[in-house]
Amino acid sequence: MEETMVIVKRGTNIESKHAGSIAVMDSDGNLLYGLGDFTKMTFTRSALKPVQTIPVLQSGAAERFLMTDKEIAICCGSHNGEEQHTQVVESMLFRIGLQEENLQCGAHPPYNQAHYLEMVRKQVEPSAIHNNCSGKHAGMLALAMHLESDIATYHYLEHPVQRKVAESLAELAEIQEDQVLTGIDGCGVPNFSIPLHKLALVFAKLANPDKVEPLSLRQAIKRITHAMLQHPEMISGTNDFCTELMRVGNGKIIAKGGAEGVYCLGLPHRGIGIAIKVEDGNWRAATPAAVEVLKQLGELTLQEEAALKAFHTPVIENRKGEVVGSIEPFFQLKAVNNIH
Amino acid sequence: MEETMVIVKRGTNIESKHAGSIAVMDSDGNLLYGLGDFTKMTFTRSALKPVQTIPVLQSGAAERFLMTDKEIAICCGSHNGEEQHTQVVESMLFRIGLQEENLQCGAHPPYNQAHYLEMVRKQVEPSAIHNNCSGKHAGMLALAMHLESDIATYHYLEHPVQRKVAESLAELAEIQEDQVLTGIDGCGVPNFSIPLHKLALVFAKLANPDKVEPLSLRQAIKRITHAMLQHPEMISGTNDFCTELMRVGNGKIIAKGGAEGVYCLGLPHRGIGIAIKVEDGNWRAATPAAVEVLKQLGELTLQEEAALKAFHTPVIENRKGEVVGSIEPFFQLKAVNNIH
Repeated sequence: MEETMVIVKRGTNIESKHAGSIAVMDSDGNLLYGLGDFTKMTFTRSALKPVQTIPVLQSGAAERFLMTDKEIAICCGSHNGEEQHTQVVESMLFRIGLQEENLQCGAHPPYNQAHYLEMVRKQVEPSAIHNNCSGKHAGMLALAMHLESDIATYHYLEHPVQRKVAESLAELAEIQEDQVLTGIDGCGVPNFSIPLHKLALVFAKLANPDKVEPLSLRQAIKRITHAMLQHPEMISGTNDFCTELMRVGNGKIIAKGGAEGVYCLGLPHRGIGIAIKVEDGNWRAATPAAVEVLKQLGELTLQEEAALKAFHTPVIENRKGEVVGSIEPFFQLKAVNNIH
Repeated sequence: MEETMVIVKRGTNIESKHAGSIAVMDSDGNLLYGLGDFTKMTFTRSALKPVQTIPVLQSGAAERFLMTDKEIAICCGSHNGEEQHTQVVESMLFRIGLQEENLQCGAHPPYNQAHYLEMVRKQVEPSAIHNNCSGKHAGMLALAMHLESDIATYHYLEHPVQRKVAESLAELAEIQEDQVLTGIDGCGVPNFSIPLHKLALVFAKLANPDKVEPLSLRQAIKRITHAMLQHPEMISGTNDFCTELMRVGNGKIIAKGGAEGVYCLGLPHRGIGIAIKVEDGNWRAATPAAVEVLKQLGELTLQEEAALKAFHTPVIENRKGEVVGSIEPFFQLKAVNNIH
């Protein structure tokens, strides 16, 4: 059963509550801490992106197309559609020999609201390049090209690109294919639902791939996490949570969120992974929960906690900017028996 | 304890769940049906607007300022900031002898996205008139003028305007002042938290005020619900839920939503009121729950149910417009013992 994870207060009274589940695993597959229903089936959504990038590296596609760390990072990111992001995706597509028209992700307005309004003023329509997943799709196109497979159908479940993604996930999660549920993500590619603690295990192995075999998989992971840590600005964007959390963490935190209230963390120096699911899917509860988990694990200095305050305990303002409420974590991680 | 009320599916698998509570009361104070924690303390948010409009009528302010049905309706609405709305608020303010600058609600972009983007293109900044609560605030200003009270502080808890609102709520909810919790709403005026079944009772009495005393209160309610039913387009806006639901209901449904997943309904021909609270505050679960309650109460013809399908079981599309999931009600109202 899920438990209350985050509360929303109006004045001093609780107005709404977010239930959720959390799993903390080490890279050997030991479950360390949990909250709620920590084995529940959970669509990974964009938290899967670092895994979706693995075959791009492991196949040799990234090497062949001379992909930079910044480009690898944006494959793993849900970017906010700022110019710093679309330029990187464009240059990647150019080097692959393809164009925006080849992206099958569909269009949506940039998440960065200021940039979107600037586009509206200039009468520029959002296109596929602004889709937060355009980096991931460019990476998938690179892989499709490298595999000499059809580039128009790379987003189909049975396409070699998606088969390789599914294999990478099953390998890292130590899970059989029949334990995986499939759905279509907002950007049109397959997404997978796996037990929450298995998703934590995936991030534990991203954080500490030392025992991962074969070597090519281990090396792919190391390049990916290096790229993410070097370029946190590619993971979400200006003043946004993933970017700021990794900046504040300064090398000790790998972080990636997903739609419907999914948040995953990896701590390389401890070799542990964390997976969070907000039961109702609301992002506003994911960020306070993520910071609180790091705090309860003793990962944050007082200075780091202060730098993350706006994400940890956001205030709610009325339309005149007066504080009328707050969002606050409301849980205590419990040590749990190993269910490996 | 709240119960699962609405599920969110990706393909055929559940991805997220919304818990909630529902109370169905008659106007004599009998609890008929319930779901979850149907007596839980609940901030009414904008579902309070018809009650906030009562003293504007009961005091004589509406009569003095020659308020039209449309103006009374927009006092009760959370409008989408379309021109059809801002024009009504402007004309009301003009007749009171005040201006937009007197509104204390603060500014936000119109909820109607097409209209907002048109404003951005024309470089028009959103102002207080576009605030979804500007009608309610104009009504409060009319009351403040009529009471010859200070018009700059009408939004303070201790101001006569807000005292009259609190009295109207306590009267209809049959509740003592010390049973009410207070907070500040997004538009800066006081809002109140009361047991959910008492909120249902308020809407039952709005639907059937025949036994409400004194006569002036009964008449105020009748004028308010008449205005809402005559002008559902003032309650939210083009293609939006409250407006469409009341249009489809064609006189048999009074409906008003509020922030944080509150939805209230009144059925005049049956003299019952319904109050719904989504535990996590997400609006996307409120509309399916509202339509489903009406269906379970036998209120909707097949034709009406079909007309409300997009609100009852909304589809989830990916960025290319392909259907990848759905939002669906997932509860059965239970007959409950009277707790009057």
